[in-house]
Amino acid sequence: MSEEMMLLVMQLGVILLASKFMGWFFSKKLKQSKVLGELIAGMIIGPFMLGAIPLGKLGPMFPMVSGPIPVSVELYGFATIGSIFLLFASGLETDLPTFIRFSGKASIVGFGGVIVSFFLGAGITVLLVPAIHSIMDPEALFLGTICTATSIGITARILNEKKKISTPEGVTILAAAVLDDVISIILLSIVVGIATVEQNGGTIAWHTIGLVAGKAIGFWVLCMVVGIFIAPHITRSLKRFNSLELIAEITFGLALLLAGLSEMVGLAMIIGAYIMGLALSQTDVSFEISERINAVSDYFVSMFFAVMGMMVNFAMIKPVLGFGLIFAIVAFIGKLLGCGLPALFAGFNIRGAFRIGAGMLPRGEVTLIVAGIGLASGAIGEDMFGVAVVTMLLASVAAPPMVVFAFKGGASGYRKSLEHAEEEDIVTIELEFPTERAADFVRRSITEGFRSEGFFIKRLEGTVKVWQIRKEATIFTIKSLETKLETNCKREDEDFVRLMLSETLVDFQGFLDGIKSMESPDMMGANLLIEMFAQEDAKQGKQV
Amino acid sequence: MSEEMMLLVMQLGVILLASKFMGWFFSKKLKQSKVLGELIAGMIIGPFMLGAIPLGKLGPMFPMVSGPIPVSVELYGFATIGSIFLLFASGLETDLPTFIRFSGKASIVGFGGVIVSFFLGAGITVLLVPAIHSIMDPEALFLGTICTATSIGITARILNEKKKISTPEGVTILAAAVLDDVISIILLSIVVGIATVEQNGGTIAWHTIGLVAGKAIGFWVLCMVVGIFIAPHITRSLKRFNSLELIAEITFGLALLLAGLSEMVGLAMIIGAYIMGLALSQTDVSFEISERINAVSDYFVSMFFAVMGMMVNFAMIKPVLGFGLIFAIVAFIGKLLGCGLPALFAGFNIRGAFRIGAGMLPRGEVTLIVAGIGLASGAIGEDMFGVAVVTMLLASVAAPPMVVFAFKGGASGYRKSLEHAEEEDIVTIELEFPTERAADFVRRSITEGFRSEGFFIKRLEGTVKVWQIRKEATIFTIKSLETKLETNCKREDEDFVRLMLSETLVDFQGFLDGIKSMESPDMMGANLLIEMFAQEDAKQGKQV
Repeated sequence: MSEEMMLLVMQLGVILLASKFMGWFFSKKLKQSKVLGELIAGMIIGPFMLGAIPLGKLGPMFPMVSGPIPVSVELYGFATIGSIFLLFASGLETDLPTFIRFSGKASIVGFGGVIVSFFLGAGITVLLVPAIHSIMDPEALFLGTICTATSIGITARILNEKKKISTPEGVTILAAAVLDDVISIILLSIVVGIATVEQNGGTIAWHTIGLVAGKAIGFWVLCMVVGIFIAPHITRSLKRFNSLELIAEITFGLALLLAGLSEMVGLAMIIGAYIMGLALSQTDVSFEISERINAVSDYFVSMFFAVMGMMVNFAMIKPVLGFGLIFAIVAFIGKLLGCGLPALFAGFNIRGAFRIGAGMLPRGEVTLIVAGIGLASGAIGEDMFGVAVVTMLLASVAAPPMVVFAFKGGASGYRKSLEHAEEEDIVTIELEFPTERAADFVRRSITEGFRSEGFFIKRLEGTVKVWQIRKEATIFTIKSLETKLETNCKREDEDFVRLMLSETLVDFQGFLDGIKSMESPDMMGANLLIEMFAQEDAKQGKQV
Repeated sequence: MSEEMMLLVMQLGVILLASKFMGWFFSKKLKQSKVLGELIAGMIIGPFMLGAIPLGKLGPMFPMVSGPIPVSVELYGFATIGSIFLLFASGLETDLPTFIRFSGKASIVGFGGVIVSFFLGAGITVLLVPAIHSIMDPEALFLGTICTATSIGITARILNEKKKISTPEGVTILAAAVLDDVISIILLSIVVGIATVEQNGGTIAWHTIGLVAGKAIGFWVLCMVVGIFIAPHITRSLKRFNSLELIAEITFGLALLLAGLSEMVGLAMIIGAYIMGLALSQTDVSFEISERINAVSDYFVSMFFAVMGMMVNFAMIKPVLGFGLIFAIVAFIGKLLGCGLPALFAGFNIRGAFRIGAGMLPRGEVTLIVAGIGLASGAIGEDMFGVAVVTMLLASVAAPPMVVFAFKGGASGYRKSLEHAEEEDIVTIELEFPTERAADFVRRSITEGFRSEGFFIKRLEGTVKVWQIRKEATIFTIKSLETKLETNCKREDEDFVRLMLSETLVDFQGFLDGIKSMESPDMMGANLLIEMFAQEDAKQGKQV
């Protein structure tokens, strides 16, 4: 076993170096998605390219393993854990209230995209691949499913960069992309069910498929409801450990278990990981967990994409390259029409509908996971896996500039002006300071004061400096606007927040009073320099 | 393969939950080492206890795998990566200059401990185990080697808790423990070499063993020298990526590669990981890398110890329990005598010698790694692996209270007063402030100023608040002594440090000048409360 371990350790080292370098190169130098660089790194170093070259005594770095997956089971294990880290983190970063608020519009957009993409994808496969005669062929079903999933990661990253997350289009895209993944994953379960029936021979038992679908949806709904209900209780009891590291580790352990359970009931493992993340996303420690998980997942997510890249068998893709191009274009049209048209009926104008359609284009992790599962189960061959990779690659390259173009110009894409679904009773408390640094000093005292009271502080991303301060149901923000501090809180928390603020100010007064007796700092600084020159003189004196 | 992945994911989930909980329970509730809790967690949930119970459709959670290692290759892969994380992190945390400065005394202590422990351990095995007739029997050699390694982790943790790291005994223990691991690992390579010869039949070729030893020592020395020489160049070029995360990831990738290379030349994988860490420990980013690696290794090191616990076959241990107890006591005596006696000749008094002997008692990760390698290679059986675990368990439980007892009372254990080996030309610059908070504010401005100049800031552990500020060869400290700030730097850096300090003070003056025009913060605070009551009144007025 030590031979196998030696090879595994070196493989992981090579993967880490190659994927991290290519990820950096693609994101920083080519302004593309990191994912793309990691995938290409995997293709280059994998068993179908450089990895096949024997290195003296060691043999090839990535020896070809026969069977549907060309890498060793121990290496594939690291990739699998990478996909679970990724989806757990995505769940943690999903904003549950926004998801629920825009769920109506998003459902229409999401379902539209899935249905149109699925039938276009499966249809074009039946039309163009000679060996496939029916939409019920496992290969057609898988290619249809591959068309459906939107990459939450890529979409969210672009919207965030362009500060478009809070626009009506942005929120709808995100909620629909989330739903999309769920529907795709359920669809995947159904497709896997059908494929299993097909492979084991016999006719397709529709009631079996119904059972699979029912079990999948039932498990999803059950986990969501139970998860959302018990997550705050879980984190509350975990706080007794008094260690945020331990909370992150234990919740990840739970995510692994739920992932395994999902697979047991016929769903994909990633759905369990995602549900666990989503359930925890509403707790007050979600940001702390997410931060700690990201520190770890950064290693394994890159490994996952690189290992996915290793699956690309170039010899197998070549004959399907033409079909891959057509398929990718069909996959694009599926989302543009399937999401754009329903958006037009949900209150968006043409500009907004185009934005939503474009925002739903990116294909990423779920596409590859679906294709990987198809490959592992034997339902699709390496050629069709290659088609999925071509689609994903083209989407990763083409979608980002398209989304940027769609969101150019500030005009709204929503027909009504955006009103808050439920106008909350928000109180604003302002404090004005003579200088920005004084404001900053007090702001820091405030956040530190709350932190020592067991609150969790999160600096929100964006150009304006905003801190979210949160403990269980109490949640408010402090905005730093040059010399002004603006606190926004719910009416019911107002008294508490005012008391805390005034306490900090009394404390600040104490700080200033204490300093009054001080020798001028300017003088202290001057003395430091005078001493320096005095010493120089003394030295020179000695030398003379 | 998806079946295997499902089981792997659930196994990792169960391991994470059990080992993290038991680690917490042992360290916080029983005041023992975490390692002990994680090992016991592994024993309980492993294939020789609860893990063997079939869980309905799933079957047993940890099905027994035939061969020397009773867990699946993909699970063992995660444990292996855990051991590499651990030794890479240990290397990063080793203080190279201290290691070199005390290397003379530490070498004597370390070698003494290794030699005496090895012969006592191998000797008692030959004496008491009927099947073993010669000290050259692979089983005797392995048990001797198991006796030799001291756990850096356990020793360092206790010394740090008790603030004894900088005492002459503390420094010697740490340097000797480091050396100890190196000697043990080289010894391990030799033993593996002999065992391989023995297993493949034929007579023992002493020149082959000489070759193995020479290759091992040569690789160690070469890597150390080259590593220490090129590590600063590596980190300097990696800084161009402008991301500390990326630096940590890439250096870990290099550690994986060096680990693999070590194994290829006949050394253990962990030695490569340790050398890479040690070489990087002297660079200015060592703390930043170490912090990021610890965030990840926390997940996998626990898995490593838990998987080690899973190897314990209770049925096999039972007949060797008596022998295990005797062996553990012999292992203790080996270190007490082997390290204590040389210490007496190296300038320590009896108190000091006892402290050093006791400090070298803990056995931990390396003991298990050695035993694990012996088991994997087939050189030792599960029974002798059990003896190693018994020794490690007893050492983990007995050593910590013994070390605490030895260091009780402040009297020195060193015959001469501690003089610095090379008295460096250190300059102290003091600044006095009227209040602690003013001093703290300026200290923060200083560290932030240096950080923005590309310096790396590290808060040193201990009761006094000390920050180390470092960039390449420039290194100095700022100590916060209530209202005083004390800066210690080398003579050659004095001018630069003085200029930076006076710049910060001018800046602080600017901050104070800006605030003078401010309405009294007390008044602002009072206004906040007055507004609050005014609103309450208004509300009540409405109600009336």
